Amino acid sequence: MSTASLDGLFRPRSVAVIGASRQRGSLGRELLRNLLIYEFEGMVFPVNPKADVILSMKAYRSVLEIPDPVDLAIIVVPRQHVLRTLEECGLKGVKGVVVISSGFREVGAEGIDREQRALEIVRRHGMRMIGPNCMGIINAQADVRLNGTFAPGTPVRGGIGFLSQSGAMGVAILNHAESRGLGLSMFASMGNKADVSSNDLLEYWEQDDATRLVLMYLESFGNPRKFTQIARRMTRSKPIIAVKSGRTEAGAAAAASHTGALAGSDVATDALLMQCGVLRADSIEDMFDMAQGLVAQPLPAGRRVAVLTDAGGPAIMATDAIGAAGLEMATLSDATRAALGDGLSPDASVKNPVDMLGQAAGPDYLRCLPLLLEDDGVDAIIALYVPPVMHDPVEVVEAIVAGARGATKPVVCVLMAPDDVMDEVKRTHGFELPVYEFPESAVKALGAMVRYGAMISREAGTVPEFDVDRDAAAAVFAHVVEDGRRDLTLAESCCVLEAYGLRFPRSQLVTTRDGLSSAAQAVGFPMVAKITSPDILHKTEIGGVVVGIRDEIELLAAYEGILGRAQAVEPPPRIEGVVLQEMREGAQEMIVGVSADPSFGPLLMAGLGGIYVEVLKDVAFRVNPITDRDAADMVRSLRGYPLLEGVRGREPVCVAAYEDALLRVSRLVTDFECIEELDVNPFLVGATAAESMAVDGRIRIDPACVLADARPANE
Amino acid sequence: MSTASLDGLFRPRSVAVIGASRQRGSLGRELLRNLLIYEFEGMVFPVNPKADVILSMKAYRSVLEIPDPVDLAIIVVPRQHVLRTLEECGLKGVKGVVVISSGFREVGAEGIDREQRALEIVRRHGMRMIGPNCMGIINAQADVRLNGTFAPGTPVRGGIGFLSQSGAMGVAILNHAESRGLGLSMFASMGNKADVSSNDLLEYWEQDDATRLVLMYLESFGNPRKFTQIARRMTRSKPIIAVKSGRTEAGAAAAASHTGALAGSDVATDALLMQCGVLRADSIEDMFDMAQGLVAQPLPAGRRVAVLTDAGGPAIMATDAIGAAGLEMATLSDATRAALGDGLSPDASVKNPVDMLGQAAGPDYLRCLPLLLEDDGVDAIIALYVPPVMHDPVEVVEAIVAGARGATKPVVCVLMAPDDVMDEVKRTHGFELPVYEFPESAVKALGAMVRYGAMISREAGTVPEFDVDRDAAAAVFAHVVEDGRRDLTLAESCCVLEAYGLRFPRSQLVTTRDGLSSAAQAVGFPMVAKITSPDILHKTEIGGVVVGIRDEIELLAAYEGILGRAQAVEPPPRIEGVVLQEMREGAQEMIVGVSADPSFGPLLMAGLGGIYVEVLKDVAFRVNPITDRDAADMVRSLRGYPLLEGVRGREPVCVAAYEDALLRVSRLVTDFECIEELDVNPFLVGATAAESMAVDGRIRIDPACVLADARPANE
Repeated sequence: MSTASLDGLFRPRSVAVIGASRQRGSLGRELLRNLLIYEFEGMVFPVNPKADVILSMKAYRSVLEIPDPVDLAIIVVPRQHVLRTLEECGLKGVKGVVVISSGFREVGAEGIDREQRALEIVRRHGMRMIGPNCMGIINAQADVRLNGTFAPGTPVRGGIGFLSQSGAMGVAILNHAESRGLGLSMFASMGNKADVSSNDLLEYWEQDDATRLVLMYLESFGNPRKFTQIARRMTRSKPIIAVKSGRTEAGAAAAASHTGALAGSDVATDALLMQCGVLRADSIEDMFDMAQGLVAQPLPAGRRVAVLTDAGGPAIMATDAIGAAGLEMATLSDATRAALGDGLSPDASVKNPVDMLGQAAGPDYLRCLPLLLEDDGVDAIIALYVPPVMHDPVEVVEAIVAGARGATKPVVCVLMAPDDVMDEVKRTHGFELPVYEFPESAVKALGAMVRYGAMISREAGTVPEFDVDRDAAAAVFAHVVEDGRRDLTLAESCCVLEAYGLRFPRSQLVTTRDGLSSAAQAVGFPMVAKITSPDILHKTEIGGVVVGIRDEIELLAAYEGILGRAQAVEPPPRIEGVVLQEMREGAQEMIVGVSADPSFGPLLMAGLGGIYVEVLKDVAFRVNPITDRDAADMVRSLRGYPLLEGVRGREPVCVAAYEDALLRVSRLVTDFECIEELDVNPFLVGATAAESMAVDGRIRIDPACVLADARPANE
Repeated sequence: MSTASLDGLFRPRSVAVIGASRQRGSLGRELLRNLLIYEFEGMVFPVNPKADVILSMKAYRSVLEIPDPVDLAIIVVPRQHVLRTLEECGLKGVKGVVVISSGFREVGAEGIDREQRALEIVRRHGMRMIGPNCMGIINAQADVRLNGTFAPGTPVRGGIGFLSQSGAMGVAILNHAESRGLGLSMFASMGNKADVSSNDLLEYWEQDDATRLVLMYLESFGNPRKFTQIARRMTRSKPIIAVKSGRTEAGAAAAASHTGALAGSDVATDALLMQCGVLRADSIEDMFDMAQGLVAQPLPAGRRVAVLTDAGGPAIMATDAIGAAGLEMATLSDATRAALGDGLSPDASVKNPVDMLGQAAGPDYLRCLPLLLEDDGVDAIIALYVPPVMHDPVEVVEAIVAGARGATKPVVCVLMAPDDVMDEVKRTHGFELPVYEFPESAVKALGAMVRYGAMISREAGTVPEFDVDRDAAAAVFAHVVEDGRRDLTLAESCCVLEAYGLRFPRSQLVTTRDGLSSAAQAVGFPMVAKITSPDILHKTEIGGVVVGIRDEIELLAAYEGILGRAQAVEPPPRIEGVVLQEMREGAQEMIVGVSADPSFGPLLMAGLGGIYVEVLKDVAFRVNPITDRDAADMVRSLRGYPLLEGVRGREPVCVAAYEDALLRVSRLVTDFECIEELDVNPFLVGATAAESMAVDGRIRIDPACVLADARPANE
């Protein structure tokens, strides 16, 4: 369906309010009243079977009785009348319906059925529906002026498209946007998203010139793959800021792998949003802080911030926040400092922060702001003002607005004034200049602007081609399914990973004492010995691994010790033998992991390996597939990254070999959707690619999925 | 000086405003006006040599001309007249002076001199002074009503003592406190703190019944040891919340040790505040969020929070924030759930969050809130309300206030309403019920209340007694000073640490090839060989350490390799030989560190050792001395703590042995203030205390300090 069809919802020429009411405080009355007060440009028709007139307007018994065409119907009737009403709308030729009424999917089985039937009616008549169980839509553009919500307040017009998955959050957000002076282009409360989805709306707003920034309050992703596709493209030209709630949803409790245990749905959300350039805000307040800066000001070219102030304390708070946000205090040039000083009190400080002291007024800001804007060492400016006596703070704000006008660098303002002054200033100047109450909020905005700037200038990288043996891997998976298993043995996992180009140490499976000697010769000392059994997942825990074996005497002791301990496990595991493996010292232990998220698909994980992965949780996630650039970013985002670069006399290791492993595993899970979990732990990163290798690998598959994957690639 | 002497400042019977002015907008006029508008209970005298009448009051040419006694003088004269004015105040018998005038220490040399002379005058006359360079003081109590500031607005009376080191932050804070409905008992802008310090004020407020909670905005600590003493005692009965700015102050760049490099002044501040039970807020906004809860509500007995709401979205945001803050969602009893459901819509959810849906109004909150308060599984409640249509939100807030009244568990409210409603509700009900705009703020308050509750119920522990050889350590330090050095050699460091009971591995210094064999016999294989030189601090970096030496052949190769690499270093280091050391495998590498902070004294550091300390920075700091309880807390606060408890089949190690090492090092730096930096890295924690030991130790001393320390303890 083309997104143009949403015009019936957002650009109607006429609106029927079905369930309009005479009763004060009822949804049906407030909604009608909002339409009228906001002065909708088209015709409005109240529909109510029991009233002749509502808010001075002639009311109709049914939408079918309205003599004129109706583009949009807003439905606020009791749940049991919704289906009949939708049918009438279809017959009437209505193009879009907004269903405010609740009593659908959110109330269980009966509601799910009702929602399904509603969707069927909507589809049959070629209508588009927002909701059910929503609080309406707004188009604030001057040629439409549609306030189809029951929220209090009057939407301010501006450049923000706002999408909320919660009606209550929608109300709260509209209140707050108004008091911040943040103007809307369009708004939609999505409700149950039975027909029109967040993705549909994003595509619609992508084409809408009035919408320059999109804010989203989300509780779930309907189709994350499509979201990624749209958002990746859209964020290149319009920033998207999202609040995604429901962080604490567990669901990973039963995971068998390290990666699975660390990959909660919130980690997936973080990765997904980052990969498609969406800024994530932790709270509604942060979202607005960020939006105020992004919608009103140019993007900074870098992270160097100058602070212009009339007071020391708040400037120190700003300096702290700048450091904490990963921004930097700009170093001002000598010329700038001389020019600033020329006109300020000798007690003033012309280093950054520039402290003009308590006597500073409008003219000082107007003179100094352009000097800072001209300094090549400055990327962004925070203008801070604490009215010391009852000076007129509005005059200072106006000076800052004037000083910043036309600048190609962002200027944000912190005004620490009484509430009434703040309210006035935000309402009157908020469109041109972001005005914050606290330094931390201003810094949060600049931080988001720097991040967004970096995201849109970041090269996406490419998904490299690899020469892989897909059939070999497919054969292993088919065998595992035939065997009635989900978990691959170590040998099977090695086989799959080797088919995708990961190198494993020289190794030999030994099943009898007599085989030890020749196997040892093939592998070479020093070596590691490990139990191999389909029933033992965590070998170390049962004493199934001995490292640093230096000769045949030690080897024999290790072999018998491992078997003895494994045989003592209850219930007795199936033991395939002991694997002897080449041992590599001095390499850095890393992990490469995969966990399939039910809605996001495979998540790839990079991190410090060995026992550190689960204790320190120093890991980075991305949604599959990843590009070479993604792999490089993942590794560099780890706290432990300096270990790879070499610290305290340790040689640097071959980071490229680790990135290669990540990319090959990405290709593997792209080819085989049946992979539910995968841990390569440790992956030893040595001084060169040739010295780097996977040491242990575990793969769990979804047997139901294997047949589909096993088809040749060209099918 | 007794703190009772501050009564002259905060409980004066008469006030002179010296520098009172007729000019609108001047400090001298605004200050006088504030005194009058706030209706100070005593007499007020304007002093101005050039005016007869100011704001309808007779003005005096000098404080000496005032016929009545003057308790408090507030001085707003130009800087060059301050000293003469102070002298006159002294002659007049004034008890307290508040010097608003600037031009003192904050402007450099000339100002420092002026401040010194001001202090001399104040002391000579037995006066107490707040400032100079401050914005005044307030005592809001009904029998005083002193507003001696030039800040706009009218202070609201309440239970909060507020102390600000920045005048501008003081203004901003007063604005904000008023709009939050947070009432003050007293307020002081401290300015340069030439005479009255923050510590003096804390002691004064400790005795003041009207002050139930203290808020502080600090930029520096004058006397952190005294602060610790006062705050530790005071926080048992009155919470203190502090914002300390100036986090990014570096100063640790030149540190030679790991501990020094990690111990910035902000880390010290964090440790100090935690150890004395002070809650640290990251911003003014957070401070107020926390204060609203602490001042108005009882402390929660635990961390289990119930959420009562009329809307799903904000409740999910609250749930997320509860998880992130380390609190828990309460599990409601079956009885509670049944009682809640009896009267709510069948679509409502009676699990936590309790969602009463959009139709919920005052009576629903009034009925459900007591049910949650009675549930033994609930420690605290967040009542959340989003007015869906234009219901009256004030009625709901009143129902919540009524439902919470008299409860022994805290109730906080989140109201997502338009600004004007919020303002009204905060002003009218803010004293009884903390009302927040966002769920995150409410959770922040509850989190602080839980933390404070835990702090005041936490046992302090004891500083254990150890049998140490203080003289042996003193002798080493004396020798190092004689030698003209600051850094101890490994052998010297070992000697000092062994004198305080830390065990080192068996080791032998070898200076010739011929000595290798007998030394190896004394130490035993496997072993480690290390260079020892006063000029080589980071041995690993130059290849000065070989581990895992298993026989004499390997030992000879290691010995020659180490010496060869050390001799190649430029400039050539003084080489004392190679130390052979017993090697312990399978133990956990930890670090014990000390860094002397210029104002806080020695900071102790616990953390993961080896190369991980500087890469992962997983460390915990405390200000010396520490108790056994502190040592236990430090270890358990590390992210890597599970490594000590044993993970994935690794045996747990002896945490008590590591705590013992921390406590012994604490004792060492208590005995020897000359220790500037100390790293025991690694300290190997083995399965038992006997298997645990320090492997490497480095100590740097301040030679100037040594003589003082070296005196016997009984002097």
